[in-house]
Amino acid sequence: MGNIDWIAADWGTSNLRIWAMSGDAVIEARGSDRGMSAMSGPDDFAAELERLTEGWPAVPVVACGMVGARQGWTEVPYSAVPCTATPALTPVAGDPGGRPVLIAAGVMQADPPDVMRGEETQIAGILAAKPDFDGVICLPGTHTKWARISAGEICHFQTVMTGEIFSLLSRQSVLRHSLNGAAGQAGSAAFADAVSTALSQPHQAWARLFRLRAAGLIGPGDPAEVHARLSGTLIGLDLGAARPYWLGEQVLIIGAPYLAELYSTALQQQGAAPVVGDADTTTRAGLLAAWRQYQDPS
Amino acid sequence: MGNIDWIAADWGTSNLRIWAMSGDAVIEARGSDRGMSAMSGPDDFAAELERLTEGWPAVPVVACGMVGARQGWTEVPYSAVPCTATPALTPVAGDPGGRPVLIAAGVMQADPPDVMRGEETQIAGILAAKPDFDGVICLPGTHTKWARISAGEICHFQTVMTGEIFSLLSRQSVLRHSLNGAAGQAGSAAFADAVSTALSQPHQAWARLFRLRAAGLIGPGDPAEVHARLSGTLIGLDLGAARPYWLGEQVLIIGAPYLAELYSTALQQQGAAPVVGDADTTTRAGLLAAWRQYQDPS
Repeated sequence: MGNIDWIAADWGTSNLRIWAMSGDAVIEARGSDRGMSAMSGPDDFAAELERLTEGWPAVPVVACGMVGARQGWTEVPYSAVPCTATPALTPVAGDPGGRPVLIAAGVMQADPPDVMRGEETQIAGILAAKPDFDGVICLPGTHTKWARISAGEICHFQTVMTGEIFSLLSRQSVLRHSLNGAAGQAGSAAFADAVSTALSQPHQAWARLFRLRAAGLIGPGDPAEVHARLSGTLIGLDLGAARPYWLGEQVLIIGAPYLAELYSTALQQQGAAPVVGDADTTTRAGLLAAWRQYQDPS
Repeated sequence: MGNIDWIAADWGTSNLRIWAMSGDAVIEARGSDRGMSAMSGPDDFAAELERLTEGWPAVPVVACGMVGARQGWTEVPYSAVPCTATPALTPVAGDPGGRPVLIAAGVMQADPPDVMRGEETQIAGILAAKPDFDGVICLPGTHTKWARISAGEICHFQTVMTGEIFSLLSRQSVLRHSLNGAAGQAGSAAFADAVSTALSQPHQAWARLFRLRAAGLIGPGDPAEVHARLSGTLIGLDLGAARPYWLGEQVLIIGAPYLAELYSTALQQQGAAPVVGDADTTTRAGLLAAWRQYQDPS
């Protein structure tokens, strides 16, 4: 193992994950739940980074995600599509902790209005490994992103609030009583049926949400089925909204394994043949590409 | 004014409203935010009713709503459709406070699974005034109900979670940053456009939710327009889900004035000619009908 020569950081709304890196090799990984939403000002970001990197050398930190948002550490302006995915880096003023802290630019689209912060770095990680990739990258999550990639650039993209709406409905709506913390299965017939209904009859899918609760009030109820149907309905609506992105296209899914499998199953059901990649590996590769470009912009 | 001879109560998930009644005349109205969800057991319900009726005579209380649910005061079994709307009343054991407390039965539908508690009483109130009503009653709210009424009976009905999802998205999702507590306008072009898109292109409507946030990040943003578009999108999806209920039907909307106006505007935009009625008057009329039927079941 080499010496730690930089630190990769994925600093989102809810979490911070950092990796002590030697080139492209991970020396050590750490994380905390001190995401952007837990911070009340720039000093909080500096203190949390100090705390979490304790014992590591004062090497440069390269970070992506909501850390660069208006409510983040330092607001970094968006790049506008079409643009190369490898994000420009902006240093936090004053080299906090005695080392450069570099934050990746997000990407915006003027029409229709859309934004991303963090996913551009994952896309850059894909393109670092496959510079000729031509197709669509799906990044499922709180806000699922669908991005059209061609000639090494992000051409256009679309965000669907699937993960956030799933979380609100499953934890805070009346449906929570019918879920009981159950997990659905991507391969279940209920999931497949819900995806299919949401794609072909979206209004029907909408009407069926309350049935998930009612069925458990007048009958025995099946929390795993409710979970699968809710998840299938929301992913089906997402696929319906993003149809021009995946229909007849080469699709690469980059996300948490469970979520990536759900999207992959749903897309396969529609005749697509998506490939699934690992989110963390991709993020680190994108941060490394961004850091190398920053050091040698030629 | 006559003497107080009964008390009408609308006891839902979030609120309790009671009226001291003399026949069909309101003598005094009171309310609290001690709905079913604030109660931890039967004693809480009894104590809250005692507190809120202080100074009123110990006359019978007739209540509808979630007070009759499994997590309510006394679980009252559902009637099954098709059934007359006027709910059967079940007394709470022991005459709490030294008087009968009578709770209205909700209504269930086995296929597709659906339930209501409280709305059946409002429907009974409509039918008490218009026994020959033949058409559809729309009751917008946390869970909007659409009920087909014929020959004095509830034939079938459908629930859409419109109000609850609006509340979650506007107060707890990332969209809350773009709303800033603004109120939309039923008559606005943005509302009309969102209703129309949600009806004709529901997947597109779904894809557009995040744009409401993104537009405010890359441009000035307009909280009132975001409110109107979010509200129009969810009501449009509701109308799409309930199309067989209102298309070509006589529709009566019973709900809070602001919400009833939104649904009325959206339906008129689709060529329907809904009539709007007052929710509280209707609830009291339904409770009175239920109490009279209880006293004289012949």
